[in-house]
Amino acid sequence: MFNKLSAEFLGTFWLVLGGCGSAVLAAGFPEVGIGLLGVSLAFGLTVLTMAYAVGGISGGHFNPAVSVGLAVAGRFPMSSLVPYILAQVAGAVVAAGTLYLVASGKADFVAGGFASNGYGELSPGGYSLTAALVAEVVLTAFFLFVILAATHGRAPAGFAPIAIGLTLTIIHLVSIPVTNTSVNPARSTGVALFADTAALGQLWLFWLAPIVGAVVGAAIWKAVGEDA
Amino acid sequence: MFNKLSAEFLGTFWLVLGGCGSAVLAAGFPEVGIGLLGVSLAFGLTVLTMAYAVGGISGGHFNPAVSVGLAVAGRFPMSSLVPYILAQVAGAVVAAGTLYLVASGKADFVAGGFASNGYGELSPGGYSLTAALVAEVVLTAFFLFVILAATHGRAPAGFAPIAIGLTLTIIHLVSIPVTNTSVNPARSTGVALFADTAALGQLWLFWLAPIVGAVVGAAIWKAVGEDA
Amino acid sequence: MFNKLSAEFLGTFWLVLGGCGSAVLAAGFPEVGIGLLGVSLAFGLTVLTMAYAVGGISGGHFNPAVSVGLAVAGRFPMSSLVPYILAQVAGAVVAAGTLYLVASGKADFVAGGFASNGYGELSPGGYSLTAALVAEVVLTAFFLFVILAATHGRAPAGFAPIAIGLTLTIIHLVSIPVTNTSVNPARSTGVALFADTAALGQLWLFWLAPIVGAVVGAAIWKAVGEDA
Amino acid sequence: MFNKLSAEFLGTFWLVLGGCGSAVLAAGFPEVGIGLLGVSLAFGLTVLTMAYAVGGISGGHFNPAVSVGLAVAGRFPMSSLVPYILAQVAGAVVAAGTLYLVASGKADFVAGGFASNGYGELSPGGYSLTAALVAEVVLTAFFLFVILAATHGRAPAGFAPIAIGLTLTIIHLVSIPVTNTSVNPARSTGVALFADTAALGQLWLFWLAPIVGAVVGAAIWKAVGEDA
Repeated sequence: MFNKLSAEFLGTFWLVLGGCGSAVLAAGFPEVGIGLLGVSLAFGLTVLTMAYAVGGISGGHFNPAVSVGLAVAGRFPMSSLVPYILAQVAGAVVAAGTLYLVASGKADFVAGGFASNGYGELSPGGYSLTAALVAEVVLTAFFLFVILAATHGRAPAGFAPIAIGLTLTIIHLVSIPVTNTSVNPARSTGVALFADTAALGQLWLFWLAPIVGAVVGAAIWKAVGEDA
Repeated sequence: MFNKLSAEFLGTFWLVLGGCGSAVLAAGFPEVGIGLLGVSLAFGLTVLTMAYAVGGISGGHFNPAVSVGLAVAGRFPMSSLVPYILAQVAGAVVAAGTLYLVASGKADFVAGGFASNGYGELSPGGYSLTAALVAEVVLTAFFLFVILAATHGRAPAGFAPIAIGLTLTIIHLVSIPVTNTSVNPARSTGVALFADTAALGQLWLFWLAPIVGAVVGAAIWKAVGEDA
Repeated sequence: MFNKLSAEFLGTFWLVLGGCGSAVLAAGFPEVGIGLLGVSLAFGLTVLTMAYAVGGISGGHFNPAVSVGLAVAGRFPMSSLVPYILAQVAGAVVAAGTLYLVASGKADFVAGGFASNGYGELSPGGYSLTAALVAEVVLTAFFLFVILAATHGRAPAGFAPIAIGLTLTIIHLVSIPVTNTSVNPARSTGVALFADTAALGQLWLFWLAPIVGAVVGAAIWKAVGEDA
Repeated sequence: MFNKLSAEFLGTFWLVLGGCGSAVLAAGFPEVGIGLLGVSLAFGLTVLTMAYAVGGISGGHFNPAVSVGLAVAGRFPMSSLVPYILAQVAGAVVAAGTLYLVASGKADFVAGGFASNGYGELSPGGYSLTAALVAEVVLTAFFLFVILAATHGRAPAGFAPIAIGLTLTIIHLVSIPVTNTSVNPARSTGVALFADTAALGQLWLFWLAPIVGAVVGAAIWKAVGEDA
């Protein structure tokens, strides 16, 4: 279990450092910034790379909603849920702290949203709570569906990290303007602690919606794909 | 058949939500928008990811033109064509509705073209009907050719979703300015229903051209590759 | 041989339609254009996708310099060189004509350089003949080196199209400003025929340099890698 | 050993030519430049492609910090460290010279930073020495962790170059604004020799930090993953 929890800690650290780090440090760099496309690639590739690295150790969840969805689908023991989620949140928080340390090493640094998630006034594009809720639930449902399907015995062996990581990239390509894209409560929690905004007060949504979405995705997979 | 049609419904939903969603929500985001490159990646990656997820269930068409082309090439039963196409169109319409729900959750929302396809006045770059027709026929023909070739027993096993998804990315990199890129009648139908423009009146082209192209692509493959 | 030459014709058609097509139609699209990054991806992905599709039929060269390099390295019969090169050039010319047909379907169309290659006044960034020569020779040498190495029995099976296609993407990421990137005499020839510039007068360089580079790359591979 | 050192020379040459070349020649090209996203892809793809090409010959390090980390982890003989590092630095220097030859073939050329690494005044975003140190140590540690994990017998065979190359892309997506991203002392050395700035005076950090990070990453892997 030590190895598994370490892998989840490191994988979630990497997701937050790579994804939120690219957003905070490089997205809006003058003239040549990587923009939302670069951030979308960074998030997806952190999962792709770490799933190849430690998928064989911990399963490569890096996300409480993923752990919940896999447990609901019967692919992961319910008894491991709490320790996995604690390791994921810890990894996210330590990564956000590390990112803060780097980002603040600059004369004119302001934390601002610090890549946190939000709706209404804290939505990058000013989207409502309802829009945020729908987006997070639906996108997390598809995320779990792809995870469960691509790791099923019927899918080509070895390619699941590519399918799963690039699904996370698509999710970001669609929804950064809506909620800054969570689909991952640990990622949301880590950076919210460092934001200069009221992000912490909206954090409930980014635990609720991804977990609901994950359960929905798992249920759809069970109905449609598991024994197809 | 329930599993297959569900997979086609979900896969086409994902294609429209990811591809058209990225176009509607994120392409033109101020300063850091993903642009046509991000949209091209999103479309291609939806097919790549869902083909890994449910390719083993339904074959992973997500597109009426693909189903027609595969049927013409003898890889898919003609008798399944109608149910597959209905499932694909249903998935596209429900996805477009979901996208509308999210996109409209914003004070200054206007549907506009809503990522629909068009020629002449409705072409993003003002391209003529002839240019649109040629582009859609030729690009769909190559799409089917790659699909048939990359899933042939001679091609390396497991890599077909990568080849096919990235072919769709190339197609978008070339032709978004011409027709906003269809090569998929279901995708065109889904969003045309929600557009504020005359997109529905041009929808015939985006059924006709992709299906003609698919038949041409299948014929070329049969002549050149099937028994090479 | 009919199947092989057809595959080379189609693959080179696809390379020019996808690569040059994205450059002519989408690179400079106002506000959301795909830029040189999108063009670089398009070129590389055409080779990646078609190598998966027809690599098992013709070897997937799509480029006279590649055919020459493979022949020099003893991987391809010298006697097939001329027919392969003719098929490649024919594919490139027909693709350029198709692209012209689409691109001209627009009121304010001007062919301009039409994605042709050049040095000096015709270099996108104003680079000299020497810079162009060095860039094309060195980059084609590395292209051939990767092709020969990644298709060697020692490399992981099935991944060669990814390595080769993405090498072409890197080549474009580096050298579009210098020569608009050739490393492929067929690609250069196809579009030069339609350019409004003096591109045809510079075409000799884009036959000479890539072929010299290919021979150099093959020689390096033979010395360093073949029997390592 | 000749073959191995040649492979390391060529691989590091490719990394510098592709990564630094894209930065110097194409990142800031007017209107359609590839930006930091294009540079990040170029760096990562050079490693992805060359690892497929020559990974079976030399292991595909292309980076003194990688060689050190692998040696510390017991995957590479300490006795080969010095010749590998010399070959890598030689490849980087010759590549930087080649790039200089091409880049200077333009009327208004100025070397400027020439894609060298730096902190403080030489940091692209003006980040402090501490921020630079933390970023380089942490990112190199994760780089080594992924390298060791993805090449472990437990990970899917054949996919390691994808995981490793794209990890380098993530690293660049995050940290180009901080240090211009090294994590590779050879890459830093090659271009520093040609910079018009005081980059050589800061080179010590880009030997120290990546090597410390590599040792840390190797230690974490040994503790967490090797025998999981």
